[in-house]
Amino acid sequence: MASFFAGRQATLRPHIKTHKCPILAHKQVAAGAVGVTCAKLSEAEVLVQAGLKDILIANQVVAGTKVERLAQLGRHARLAVAVDDPENVHELDRAAQRVGANLRVLVEVDVGMQRCGVPPGPPALKLARKVASASRLRFDGLMGYEGHAVFVGDRDLRLEAVKQAMTQLTDTAAIIRAEGLEVTTVSAGGTGTYDLTGSIPGVTEVQAGSYLLMDARYAKMRLGFRTAITCLATVISTPAQGRAILDVGCKSLTYEFGLPEVLSPPGARLTGLNEEHGYLEYAAHTGPLSIGQRVELIPSHVCTTVNLHDTFCALRGEAVEAIWPIAARGMAC
Amino acid sequence: MASFFAGRQATLRPHIKTHKCPILAHKQVAAGAVGVTCAKLSEAEVLVQAGLKDILIANQVVAGTKVERLAQLGRHARLAVAVDDPENVHELDRAAQRVGANLRVLVEVDVGMQRCGVPPGPPALKLARKVASASRLRFDGLMGYEGHAVFVGDRDLRLEAVKQAMTQLTDTAAIIRAEGLEVTTVSAGGTGTYDLTGSIPGVTEVQAGSYLLMDARYAKMRLGFRTAITCLATVISTPAQGRAILDVGCKSLTYEFGLPEVLSPPGARLTGLNEEHGYLEYAAHTGPLSIGQRVELIPSHVCTTVNLHDTFCALRGEAVEAIWPIAARGMAC
Repeated sequence: MASFFAGRQATLRPHIKTHKCPILAHKQVAAGAVGVTCAKLSEAEVLVQAGLKDILIANQVVAGTKVERLAQLGRHARLAVAVDDPENVHELDRAAQRVGANLRVLVEVDVGMQRCGVPPGPPALKLARKVASASRLRFDGLMGYEGHAVFVGDRDLRLEAVKQAMTQLTDTAAIIRAEGLEVTTVSAGGTGTYDLTGSIPGVTEVQAGSYLLMDARYAKMRLGFRTAITCLATVISTPAQGRAILDVGCKSLTYEFGLPEVLSPPGARLTGLNEEHGYLEYAAHTGPLSIGQRVELIPSHVCTTVNLHDTFCALRGEAVEAIWPIAARGMAC
Repeated sequence: MASFFAGRQATLRPHIKTHKCPILAHKQVAAGAVGVTCAKLSEAEVLVQAGLKDILIANQVVAGTKVERLAQLGRHARLAVAVDDPENVHELDRAAQRVGANLRVLVEVDVGMQRCGVPPGPPALKLARKVASASRLRFDGLMGYEGHAVFVGDRDLRLEAVKQAMTQLTDTAAIIRAEGLEVTTVSAGGTGTYDLTGSIPGVTEVQAGSYLLMDARYAKMRLGFRTAITCLATVISTPAQGRAILDVGCKSLTYEFGLPEVLSPPGARLTGLNEEHGYLEYAAHTGPLSIGQRVELIPSHVCTTVNLHDTFCALRGEAVEAIWPIAARGMAC
C-alpha cells in the first residue's frame, strides 16, 4: 500500500478502526502514511496518548462533553474532524475557543452512500463558509466516503461507481475554490477502492484500513494484499465422525459478512457459530481431528473481529515476536 | 427468578456469560443462587479473583496449559467442569494431582442439541465410571443443555422438547445410580426453559443467564422478566426528513438475532447497522430528531452485546448509581 502511494498526488491516511493498535499505526506512519484516520473520539484519545501526531476523526463529534474532549485533544495533536451541520460547527468553535485549541475541519459530503454528509455543491459550499468564518476552526477541505462502491465485485463497475462518487467531491471542491476558499484536503476511499480513488485527480488522501490485515471477504476481491490475521481455535469435542466442536463462537469471531474460513486443516469448514462454540465439518482425508488440536481460521470481517480481542500475537515466521495490545478495542464513542 | 426457585428441588446456578460482571454474580448468589455458571476458564478466573466460591464451567477445558490453570484454580474455589472424553478426564486428573487440587466433574450428555456431550445411557455411564475412578476428580453428576428447545416460541412445543431432552438426562442418571455411583447434580436449562426444565423431577440445577438483563428476542417470548438493559446512542447527523444517523454500529450492538429495537423515541426504528453507524427512520409525529439527541435501544442479543462493552452504567430510576466493570468481557478462552 505504501509503495502504491509513493510519488502519487494522493497520500495514504490509513484507517485504524481495523486494527485499533497504536504500534501498527506508528508502523504505517513510518512506512510513509501522512497520518491516520479513526472513527471515534475515544479512538483518537488512545492514539494521541500513544504519540500519534496527525489524526483525522472521519465522523461527526457532537454534544456537550464530547465536543469539549475533542477540543482539549486538539491542543495535543494535529487533529481534524468531519462536520455536516452548521450548529455543530458553532459548537466546535466555541469549545475550541474555551480551551485555546485550533481544530481542522473537513466538510463531509454525501457522495451516494446516504449516510452522513451534506449534499454536494452549494450546501457544501455554505457549510465550508461557515467553518471558514469560525474563529478557531480551519476549513481544511472535504471528505466523502464511497462506501457503496468499496465492495462492488466487478472492477469496471467499481471504477464507474468511484468516478461518479469522486466527481461529486472534486466538483464541489472546485466550486468552493472558485469562491476563494482554499481546499487543502479531499479525503475518501477504502481498501476496496484504494487504487481507483487514489488515482482520481484532486483526491489528496485515501483512508483505507483493512488492507493491513485483510479478511476472507476482502480476499475474494483479489486486491493483491495477503491475509495477515488468523484466529487459532482449539477442538474441545469430537462428537461424531467428520465433526468437531471448537472453543470459538461469535464472541471471538463475527459473522455479519459470513462465516470465517478454515485455513488449516485443509478440507475442513465451519458450518456454524454459537456464542462460545464453533461447528466444524471435515472430509475423510482431513481427519480424524483430535481434542486439543488447533484449527486456524480467517475472520470474515476483520474490523469487528479485532474489536472482540485485547491483544495481537505478532508472529514472524512461526515465532511469536510480540504481544501487542489492541488499545482502542471497545472505543466506540 | 430467585422466587421461582425458592423451595423447589431444582436450584438456580445462573450463567454469567450474559453479564460477565462479578458484582452481578455476587448479587445473584445473595438472592439465593447456589453458585454460578460460566462458559470459559478465563471467565472462571475472573470470578474467583472477585471472590465467587462455587463455579461451574459448563464446557470442556482441554489441552496443556489451560488444564494446568484449571487445576490451579481448583485450589481456590469449589470448581466443577464438564467432560465428554476419557482422555480429557485423564488429563484433568493428572493436572489435579500435580497441583494438589480436587475438581468436581459433570459428564456432559448430548440431549439433542448435537454440540458437545456423549450420547445418553451407556456411553455416559462409561465416562462417569472413568471419572469416579480418577484419584483427584469427584464425579458430581450430569449436565445437558437443551439449547434446541430454549427458543421454541410455542410453550407447549417447548415443554415437549424439554421433556424429551430431560428424560434422556434423568434416565441416564438412573442408569448410573443403578450401578452404584452417586449422581448429586443434574444441571441443565436456559432462560427460555427455566420454569419447564426447573420443574422436571430429577433436575437439580438450572443455568439460566439472560433473564437478569433480557433482550429484544427474549422479550418476544413473554417469560415475565422485564428488560433491564438498554444502550444509549446519540444522533450525529440528520441527513433527511424522517432519517437520522446514530453513533452506534455493530461494534456496539450485535445483530445476529436481528436489529436492536428502539425504546425511545417511540415511532422510530433502526433500519441498519454499519460498523460505527446506525440508520434510524422515524414517523412524522416522532420528529424532527436533532443532532445530539439521545436514542435508547434494546439489544437483540444481550450476551454478545454486553461482550462489546467495558462497563455498565447502573441506574436506579433516572440516577446513575454505579459504574460496574464488565470484568470478564473478552474472556473467550
